[in-house]
Amino acid sequence: MALPLVLVSHQPPTPIRDAFLGVLSGFADVLFLPDLSDKLQQAALYNARAVLTYHPIRDLGAASLRQLKNCGLLQCLTAGIDYLSFEELPDHIDVAYNAGAYAEPMAEHVAAMALAASKRLAGEHRLMKAGEFNQFVPTKKISGATCGILGYGETGREVARVMRALGMKIQAINRSGITEDAVDFAGTLDDVDQVLTASDVFVITIALTKKTDSLIRAAQLSRMKSDAVLVNVARGEIVDEDDLYAHLLSHPNFTACLEAWWIEPVRHGTFAMKYPFLDLPNVIASPHNSAMVDGALVVAAQRGAENVLRFLKGETPHFIAGDDLRMT
Amino acid sequence: MALPLVLVSHQPPTPIRDAFLGVLSGFADVLFLPDLSDKLQQAALYNARAVLTYHPIRDLGAASLRQLKNCGLLQCLTAGIDYLSFEELPDHIDVAYNAGAYAEPMAEHVAAMALAASKRLAGEHRLMKAGEFNQFVPTKKISGATCGILGYGETGREVARVMRALGMKIQAINRSGITEDAVDFAGTLDDVDQVLTASDVFVITIALTKKTDSLIRAAQLSRMKSDAVLVNVARGEIVDEDDLYAHLLSHPNFTACLEAWWIEPVRHGTFAMKYPFLDLPNVIASPHNSAMVDGALVVAAQRGAENVLRFLKGETPHFIAGDDLRMT
Repeated sequence: MALPLVLVSHQPPTPIRDAFLGVLSGFADVLFLPDLSDKLQQAALYNARAVLTYHPIRDLGAASLRQLKNCGLLQCLTAGIDYLSFEELPDHIDVAYNAGAYAEPMAEHVAAMALAASKRLAGEHRLMKAGEFNQFVPTKKISGATCGILGYGETGREVARVMRALGMKIQAINRSGITEDAVDFAGTLDDVDQVLTASDVFVITIALTKKTDSLIRAAQLSRMKSDAVLVNVARGEIVDEDDLYAHLLSHPNFTACLEAWWIEPVRHGTFAMKYPFLDLPNVIASPHNSAMVDGALVVAAQRGAENVLRFLKGETPHFIAGDDLRMT
Repeated sequence: MALPLVLVSHQPPTPIRDAFLGVLSGFADVLFLPDLSDKLQQAALYNARAVLTYHPIRDLGAASLRQLKNCGLLQCLTAGIDYLSFEELPDHIDVAYNAGAYAEPMAEHVAAMALAASKRLAGEHRLMKAGEFNQFVPTKKISGATCGILGYGETGREVARVMRALGMKIQAINRSGITEDAVDFAGTLDDVDQVLTASDVFVITIALTKKTDSLIRAAQLSRMKSDAVLVNVARGEIVDEDDLYAHLLSHPNFTACLEAWWIEPVRHGTFAMKYPFLDLPNVIASPHNSAMVDGALVVAAQRGAENVLRFLKGETPHFIAGDDLRMT
């Protein structure tokens, strides 16, 4: 019996190609679309049971998408898929996102930002240059403090694991309000205010959806401790840009660690802000690179291929985008 | 029977006073030297079985030290006592240091510095201000990397606990070369070169002694990975200042996280450097404040008092300074 066909929409570098083949060999024929002649591309699109892709609309195009007559799964390799216009995708094909594919490096990055802010590394370095040596001005103790996590999914749980090892108490927000993990509190989006109030460090790892767009506004920020640390590694839009800038100006001991931006190159083709966030002493900025450590893309490719394998074996794939994940 | 007398050399704030009394009440009479009249001071010095002090020479003075005829233990409240001139102390009195009293906040600070360096937080923030948005330039992955710890004592072990939770492998240097902890390698000062070579992050938590003074020079630095991170939370003198500055200039991807300095206010009355370390992009500086979180001095006071209690009960106190700790 012929093996099912898995089509890869792009031309990946060798380690990622090897990761796909390592997982799927023996279970599927794997073809890379750019390797094929025009004619073979048509046949491959028609026969493909699943597609591995970073961005199905950009990488395949509308015409090719319409040819996926036998495809049951579009497996995206990115963790977030809020940039997809679902109405441009065929209705009969499930779309899976790659949740938690970058959980481990992202949790490291969150810990780096939260600790750097709590220990005032940039600020004290600056003051030392100005001649101040504040040996006896206390910094924030992490152990025993509370870390709120908005989006207690794959990435949020890995953040919790690291922060718990540092002695933090965890307050988690997820869809069900339930987790078996050792948390101090678990709730849903209805409980965000309470978690904001309790948090010394508040980490945003939730998907951008209609429900989470501009979820954190002035009213929410005003509930936070005056010296709290906000870390956003999800999407800029979850925090209101105007309100955050105003809050940073009026709360000099509050720190925002911004890894996700409102207008940024991959999603918008440019990096732009309404306000000079980068000039504020209480902002730590990074260029949406929290996922990007050596080997991260290979791990993500492997996890994506493993989800395709689940589908081919007749199991239910993980992380199928439901209506709640559709922005459009 | 009268309780033994424990003398406190200074006038501590209430929470620290309460910590001393909380541990020692019922086992000792506790007197605070500055509370006493001149005459009572003489009697207290003569009768004291143990003294709790930050700095016995500075806080008591030579004349008072000579009056400690019945004292068996000078318990210092600082973790490092390299600043003590042992020849100015009575020979018949043991001196204990407060090892690991600040282990937990120091380990948090080490993690903050090591992670901030590995994730290039300051550098990428600077580049973003200059218009670069390096989303796809990998940062160092912490999980799976190696953390060398020079001084695997109380503080070093707490650093290891945190770094292990982040997925790092630990290579430990202590006096015996032996530990029961889950380390990848344990060795003595004879093995420093090998640990330097293996380390992605190399943390200095060792006491300053004749053996560790200028232990890390150009030859040692040259063994380190070109993108390694050096964290010194012990004493500046352990690293050669000239050699480190030259190494930082010639190795732009190498980062030095400097929390301990060569000339710094508490030990020398001023903060001074031979070179402009604070202007280098590959230096993260902090003002020797890693111990200083809310409540840290109270924890240290409690641990010091507990060691005095061991002594009063006839047990062997921990962390008695031996000849190897004496700089002078």
